Amino acid sequence: MDENLLKIKPKSEGDNRAVAIACRLDSPKALKVVQFITDYLLARKEKISYETRISSKFIRHFAKNLEDMTIHNTKFLISVGGDGTVLRIAHNLPKVDPPLILGVNLGSVGFLDESDADPKILKKDLDKVLKGEFFIETASRLSTFIGKHKLPLALNEVLIISSKPSKVLYTSIEIDQSYFTSSYLDGLIVSTHTGSSAYALSAGGCLMDPRLNGFEIVPLNPSASTGVFRPLIVPDFAEVTIKLERARLNGLVIIDGQAEYKVSPQVSIKISRSDSEIRFIRFKENVLGYFKRVREKILFSRNIIENSIDN
Amino acid sequence: MDENLLKIKPKSEGDNRAVAIACRLDSPKALKVVQFITDYLLARKEKISYETRISSKFIRHFAKNLEDMTIHNTKFLISVGGDGTVLRIAHNLPKVDPPLILGVNLGSVGFLDESDADPKILKKDLDKVLKGEFFIETASRLSTFIGKHKLPLALNEVLIISSKPSKVLYTSIEIDQSYFTSSYLDGLIVSTHTGSSAYALSAGGCLMDPRLNGFEIVPLNPSASTGVFRPLIVPDFAEVTIKLERARLNGLVIIDGQAEYKVSPQVSIKISRSDSEIRFIRFKENVLGYFKRVREKILFSRNIIENSIDN
Amino acid sequence: MDENLLKIKPKSEGDNRAVAIACRLDSPKALKVVQFITDYLLARKEKISYETRISSKFIRHFAKNLEDMTIHNTKFLISVGGDGTVLRIAHNLPKVDPPLILGVNLGSVGFLDESDADPKILKKDLDKVLKGEFFIETASRLSTFIGKHKLPLALNEVLIISSKPSKVLYTSIEIDQSYFTSSYLDGLIVSTHTGSSAYALSAGGCLMDPRLNGFEIVPLNPSASTGVFRPLIVPDFAEVTIKLERARLNGLVIIDGQAEYKVSPQVSIKISRSDSEIRFIRFKENVLGYFKRVREKILFSRNIIENSIDN
Amino acid sequence: MDENLLKIKPKSEGDNRAVAIACRLDSPKALKVVQFITDYLLARKEKISYETRISSKFIRHFAKNLEDMTIHNTKFLISVGGDGTVLRIAHNLPKVDPPLILGVNLGSVGFLDESDADPKILKKDLDKVLKGEFFIETASRLSTFIGKHKLPLALNEVLIISSKPSKVLYTSIEIDQSYFTSSYLDGLIVSTHTGSSAYALSAGGCLMDPRLNGFEIVPLNPSASTGVFRPLIVPDFAEVTIKLERARLNGLVIIDGQAEYKVSPQVSIKISRSDSEIRFIRFKENVLGYFKRVREKILFSRNIIENSIDN
Repeated sequence: MDENLLKIKPKSEGDNRAVAIACRLDSPKALKVVQFITDYLLARKEKISYETRISSKFIRHFAKNLEDMTIHNTKFLISVGGDGTVLRIAHNLPKVDPPLILGVNLGSVGFLDESDADPKILKKDLDKVLKGEFFIETASRLSTFIGKHKLPLALNEVLIISSKPSKVLYTSIEIDQSYFTSSYLDGLIVSTHTGSSAYALSAGGCLMDPRLNGFEIVPLNPSASTGVFRPLIVPDFAEVTIKLERARLNGLVIIDGQAEYKVSPQVSIKISRSDSEIRFIRFKENVLGYFKRVREKILFSRNIIENSIDN
Repeated sequence: MDENLLKIKPKSEGDNRAVAIACRLDSPKALKVVQFITDYLLARKEKISYETRISSKFIRHFAKNLEDMTIHNTKFLISVGGDGTVLRIAHNLPKVDPPLILGVNLGSVGFLDESDADPKILKKDLDKVLKGEFFIETASRLSTFIGKHKLPLALNEVLIISSKPSKVLYTSIEIDQSYFTSSYLDGLIVSTHTGSSAYALSAGGCLMDPRLNGFEIVPLNPSASTGVFRPLIVPDFAEVTIKLERARLNGLVIIDGQAEYKVSPQVSIKISRSDSEIRFIRFKENVLGYFKRVREKILFSRNIIENSIDN
Repeated sequence: MDENLLKIKPKSEGDNRAVAIACRLDSPKALKVVQFITDYLLARKEKISYETRISSKFIRHFAKNLEDMTIHNTKFLISVGGDGTVLRIAHNLPKVDPPLILGVNLGSVGFLDESDADPKILKKDLDKVLKGEFFIETASRLSTFIGKHKLPLALNEVLIISSKPSKVLYTSIEIDQSYFTSSYLDGLIVSTHTGSSAYALSAGGCLMDPRLNGFEIVPLNPSASTGVFRPLIVPDFAEVTIKLERARLNGLVIIDGQAEYKVSPQVSIKISRSDSEIRFIRFKENVLGYFKRVREKILFSRNIIENSIDN
Repeated sequence: MDENLLKIKPKSEGDNRAVAIACRLDSPKALKVVQFITDYLLARKEKISYETRISSKFIRHFAKNLEDMTIHNTKFLISVGGDGTVLRIAHNLPKVDPPLILGVNLGSVGFLDESDADPKILKKDLDKVLKGEFFIETASRLSTFIGKHKLPLALNEVLIISSKPSKVLYTSIEIDQSYFTSSYLDGLIVSTHTGSSAYALSAGGCLMDPRLNGFEIVPLNPSASTGVFRPLIVPDFAEVTIKLERARLNGLVIIDGQAEYKVSPQVSIKISRSDSEIRFIRFKENVLGYFKRVREKILFSRNIIENSIDN
């Protein structure tokens, strides 16, 4: 890819690509924010592409499928919603040269979002993006095969659970053909660093610096009866092979909470890093912004004034 | 360093370097094992160097300080004991070109050890090493500065705790000059991948594949009153800066459980990857052997036969 | 209930009640063990009742439904299998005056079992029971209502999960009409002390001494985005009320892994201690035996000899 | 004790007991709050007793030692500070008939406090107390013996740690003379329900409803090498016996972070419920107020509006 395509300029300076917009469908507030963004962009004579599903609510001939949006035709893609919206978008974008994403939060946790539905903040942030004043955070993704069947890429995590909620799985794991361990458990999460602050964290995983070249295997409620099973961080060149070992108990593979796939016992589930990455627009340098988001949205970090300590 | 020095051949084939031996001092069994190794090596006409502290118990003129043992004068160094002995040895070896280490376990957990005090196993393993039939596991180490004072390198972990057991620390952490978080807690562990199966694991950290280029920051019993604090994995090029923030409460920095250093409030403790690595002799390839040791010594992995499942 | 009914004597001494037998159905080994027990009991002229489902494999006219077995007609009930078999049996026994249970383990974890399929051990244990040489462990159970619909009693735990594996629940909890907390999570476990070494433990709960008058509320993978949610131990007279708060997202209530019930948003799930208890036959006094089973089956407690410590 | 003494009336209605005040010594703000309380009480013609250590800063002849304050001579005792101040006060009050405590928080976490240094809140709360409009929360305490030496009572927890920060303990635990388990670990916490939201929680323990008749044993960073060690809840009539099993490694027993006592290997540390309880003044009924404090001060419970959920 031509690295120049990652740079953004206003249309008036010759950058003819469109600004794309996608959003939650079940939220009236989301549509209002999209209207606000539309007005802003039209005032600046920017071209707009709406995700096809919402385009009918605005101006139909600007419709474009997410599958057709690339860095070549799209300056950047605005996701109006929360993390679920970003994950749905990433799930549908093309694998080759997907556009930059700017997440606009509507009020939920929105860990992946960088901007906010508040009009003042949003206007200021869009100004910055159109002037090219931003940093790019690159998020690697996971490629998953069930046997020879390739699943969509995962931006947050690949989740493997039992197909029957009252039957626990018995899974075996190999890393690069080396046997790691087996356990009874509710499921397994293989998480990117992006996902390390999401479901993997709820299940007991570690946070991962976005610059780390690795991913994380986190067991879901492993049973003490098969020993101890603690999260494992592996390098990003590793291939993880998981098998379900209980006869007649199928599993489900769930990609980013977006799509489910059935898996039978003894069929290899192979997970490894994909070459296709997602790039997010950020206003602070990589780690600085990441830590700020972690502190505010995950850690509930609370400063306690020194002179009020009483112990 | 000349990579040829990592290859080992018997003296009869022209490799004139000595085989060095160090061991626990408080264990009669250790001395017996050293005698067994001595007899074995003398029968093969190998040169021997004893760690100075034990040499008087054997043949004095073979004494050599750990500080003087290098890959240039030492084929490999046999550590007879457990993980504590390996850590003590690594603590004292020179930073430049330290020799290969073969750990011989005396019966404790011995996660770092590859061989065993059982004479049959030990003889077979020594045969293999002298024939050059082994793999090398490279273990990175951590460099620590308290202000401008450089501490010894850490093979497992750098631990920071309160100097008063009944007073909790309040620490702040920066990663590469970016503020991460602050918390009340008993202490902080910064762990290498080697240490990730040791104290860091007891404190709630993740296991780290030995090939991962990263290290781990693990809080010790963080107080819920200052929010959530979960372990963080950072890339191995990161510099971690920790400060103690409570007035008048000093801390202790402990390197691999081997040596303690006092630290005052507001003095920077800087931790980063050292260029100096320790190399272990292993008989299985890197990950395969690592997972086996993890399974057997940490996870208590227990296979449960499928037809005995009852749920 | 007449407490004398808890005492067991051989038929020759006038105790005319039958010895009942139930077992796993999918295990040829279980049937062999039942045959062994049958031979043993017939040799001692004891009356036998088979659980109806297995009776056809033995002597049909001894069949009795689990629902009809009570302490009045049954000296004790032998469960041949593992914990799943004990849970299934407890699920089906009458609530009033259920018989004593002796669990015979077939090789799985079998935390609830006291005896073993090994013929020597089993014979010795049956001898003891018929001589009345045993202790009784009383296990309280949980009563659950979905709205006004009463569910079967839970010996281990009541589990509430999402009906859609990729959608997390948002639950609120009240204890005795006092609001406790709300959280996004995979589910909630309300566990008896018996269940505290089972699924509740996998999910991060505490072990509970069998003499404690309390039960335990354990969240399943609570999301950090809604704060911290730690297991809570409540007294056994407490009533726990749980509601699902996300519109259009149903839940499942699962009793001891035996039966599932659908629950709609905003319908009260009320859980409290039942008057109906299960009594287990034990050969060691309450706590002593409990701790032994915990150590051997859950903690993997490993003694390390003092002189091999190396740190 | 005469239960009438737990009722409080103004002096004008014949209740001649003093209102006692104790506070942090290192905080100028604390002294201002004590002055405010003094003015308030003098205006209502209430008798005042100052803790001896602070009395010189006010009116010397009102001084009284904490050791001499009882329900017979003290309507209630106001603790101005945070949890550390309440623990220090409880540590020094007489075991027989200690007075009711009202905690006034100065800005730290103050989980045990019920009122606040804000003058409006404080005045309103003092009004309520003098009118007798409050509830009483009873907090049980732990009695500890090292051999035959009795230590002060613990309101939060008894902590046992190594006397050398770089040497882990090896402890064995018996409950009511029944062996429970042994483990390498940093320490052990035996916690009351009051302490279950404090240090025990940081170490991985469960929250305990204040009405539960039990206490909690929580390991501090147990080593995976000796198996799994999970927190255990025991009934409040249980006696816990702990021994340090490593030769030549002493421990420290720390009561509520207030006082340290040395303990040698193989000496029994016996911990059980004391008859002497502490009573707190509360303005909400037991559980309701407890859950509110837990939510606000420990769980960071955050309500997320339904229509902003995006997953």
